[in-house]
Amino acid sequence: MKAVSTDSPGERLGSYNRRTFLAGLAGTSAAFAIPESCLAFAANHSQAEPGSLPETKAPEPPPPPHHKIRFSVIGINHYHVYGQIAAVQRGGGEMVSFYAKEPDLSAEFQKRFPQVKRAASEDEILNDPSIQLIVSAIIPDERAPLGIRVMQHGKDYLSDKPGITSLEQLAQVRRVQAQTRRIYAIMYSERLEVRAAVKAGELVKAGAIGRVIQTINIAPHQIQNPGAGPRPAWFWDTSRYGGILCDVGSHQADQFLYYTNSTTADVTASQVANVAHHDHPNFQDFGDMMLHGNGGAGYVRVDWFTPDGLGTWGDGRLFILGTEGYIELRKYADIAGRKGGDHLFLVDRHQPRYINCADVDLPFGRQFVSDIVNRTQTGQDQAQAFLAAELVLKAQKQAKVLTFRP
Amino acid sequence: MKAVSTDSPGERLGSYNRRTFLAGLAGTSAAFAIPESCLAFAANHSQAEPGSLPETKAPEPPPPPHHKIRFSVIGINHYHVYGQIAAVQRGGGEMVSFYAKEPDLSAEFQKRFPQVKRAASEDEILNDPSIQLIVSAIIPDERAPLGIRVMQHGKDYLSDKPGITSLEQLAQVRRVQAQTRRIYAIMYSERLEVRAAVKAGELVKAGAIGRVIQTINIAPHQIQNPGAGPRPAWFWDTSRYGGILCDVGSHQADQFLYYTNSTTADVTASQVANVAHHDHPNFQDFGDMMLHGNGGAGYVRVDWFTPDGLGTWGDGRLFILGTEGYIELRKYADIAGRKGGDHLFLVDRHQPRYINCADVDLPFGRQFVSDIVNRTQTGQDQAQAFLAAELVLKAQKQAKVLTFRP
Repeated sequence: MKAVSTDSPGERLGSYNRRTFLAGLAGTSAAFAIPESCLAFAANHSQAEPGSLPETKAPEPPPPPHHKIRFSVIGINHYHVYGQIAAVQRGGGEMVSFYAKEPDLSAEFQKRFPQVKRAASEDEILNDPSIQLIVSAIIPDERAPLGIRVMQHGKDYLSDKPGITSLEQLAQVRRVQAQTRRIYAIMYSERLEVRAAVKAGELVKAGAIGRVIQTINIAPHQIQNPGAGPRPAWFWDTSRYGGILCDVGSHQADQFLYYTNSTTADVTASQVANVAHHDHPNFQDFGDMMLHGNGGAGYVRVDWFTPDGLGTWGDGRLFILGTEGYIELRKYADIAGRKGGDHLFLVDRHQPRYINCADVDLPFGRQFVSDIVNRTQTGQDQAQAFLAAELVLKAQKQAKVLTFRP
Repeated sequence: MKAVSTDSPGERLGSYNRRTFLAGLAGTSAAFAIPESCLAFAANHSQAEPGSLPETKAPEPPPPPHHKIRFSVIGINHYHVYGQIAAVQRGGGEMVSFYAKEPDLSAEFQKRFPQVKRAASEDEILNDPSIQLIVSAIIPDERAPLGIRVMQHGKDYLSDKPGITSLEQLAQVRRVQAQTRRIYAIMYSERLEVRAAVKAGELVKAGAIGRVIQTINIAPHQIQNPGAGPRPAWFWDTSRYGGILCDVGSHQADQFLYYTNSTTADVTASQVANVAHHDHPNFQDFGDMMLHGNGGAGYVRVDWFTPDGLGTWGDGRLFILGTEGYIELRKYADIAGRKGGDHLFLVDRHQPRYINCADVDLPFGRQFVSDIVNRTQTGQDQAQAFLAAELVLKAQKQAKVLTFRP
């Protein structure tokens, strides 16, 4: 990457794929349109001085879906299912039926989607040849067995994460997926459905930080979601949700593989602990793992210690270190005071730069529906999805269990 | 920690050791005096709404030193020596002489300190009974042998970091220190001489984030210090500087032990790489390590990839996760646009809070000189300083060497 330094802020990113990068900013009246919420801040910082922070915003009107599919839902034990449904609908999916064995969850679902048929059984859905895709957020340890039945019925599958909770399940899923050539997708939403994460992927691909060396994810979560009821029993039981690295960490393993573009990877080391939830002895409230792949290294910390004062469920961060710069995402909050989420910071050879990603398009739903129709892998790479699962399952299995001085 | 919520911002930290915390803010006209540089920002964020960010500033006039000592300098191969000297002088030290074998470095030193005697040899200094302390930033692998001679001559020692470059050296240093009862201090300046890091220590001790669970340090560094000459040959030679984890990482191992208050600790795993400096095959430009101790866990990433656009040598971060909240330090830069360094963010049960630490007192020099006079360990715990060295030496020795796809 050769630097091209001019007085025009629009030139400051240098010559690397400038067209690609600026295309991402299309629609702004200038590359540095400043959101109103940041005006007071920006007014205090001249662009000319070091430490100043040019702002960019990248609105992209989402293109309409190109394809239509029919899908159904089986298993609605986690509210993530609503996000999965929304993504598939945005992509051109028509939801035709659902099944869940829990009457209370079913009633809530029906209230939300009164036009969707409540099936009498799982088999009723699996045996309906018009259904192309099954979406599920069933209890985690039931996701792989269900997905196997789905694939064996000739349908594609979109599971909530974790999509697989043991290495034995993973081996079976891989075998059946290879036999049936169906899609076993896992909704790693903290990348696929986060606008700042999508933007980071574009920037990395465009070479904005050179060659990626490492990713660090810090992923705190909140035990009690404000406004939601108490967590169900399975939430506290490692044998059901797979452990904190398997569950929460699967998002981050996906990001590590994606941003480092690793096609092979392994776990260097991992740790778990139950620091402060001794009333739930089978729960893990802290975990971390060190990863390495053929495209770079990775580190992930997950925990259930988001303090109430944050105002949202977690201060999720992603740091992508490259040979020519680095990116930081503040995905859901910015404790420095910017409102909302989707904050991207890019520091390169020339300056720090802030990109508000609130208007970045989320392509996953559209890509995924298109993949179902065209038998492609544009929304999610099948091997990468499985490798992310493999990493967290290995990390979970070999994790050193920490206990600290009380 | 029980919450005490009132309308007074000064009350919002809750009831934990409020006296201790507010004592740290003494001298501000209110707990929330806002630095002028932040006014435009603060004006845009009402304290009442979520995501708002009350600002505090904690000016403390440094108390005068209570003690006087005489000290000399042996070995000035790293410019860190000037920071070490300044700390000891602030604490009451009088620099009387120096020795270095390099004529060019000696000439530069003499220009800076014309009143300080240039000794003819190391022995001249070691045999001067009026000298109580030797300060050194000699080439890293010579620091321990020198420190051993210093202690054997009945003097205390303040080494630049890394203070020790092999486990064999460490064993010898520990033995001689135990025999002589001299002080073998290592200047972990990224905690001891960073105002935000000092403030974080106060907050942690006061219980501001509950019990500490983990620390994460991200510590990028810059190969070419603007305005400085080229790096000397030893900088590129792992056998001389000890490797990236030993060298840069010793700062972070110290912080892990200090903030988790761990008295025993070990390395879970570590990795090193030479990603982009193949013209220096014995150099390491990336490293990371996962640590665990009896007080908490730790993760450290070190690298030499600070991009020029940052405007300073490194975007050093520290995240301290506690059971009741967390602290983030942006030690030397804030890519979100605040000027300078020493930015501390605290999120607890009640809100995110920003503390500008620019005026926080640096007590190390004063404490250290007092320790020399009173044979105490207030500035640095001897066992902790050695344990930090032990961790990085083990991490370095057992590090997995990574190679990525070119």
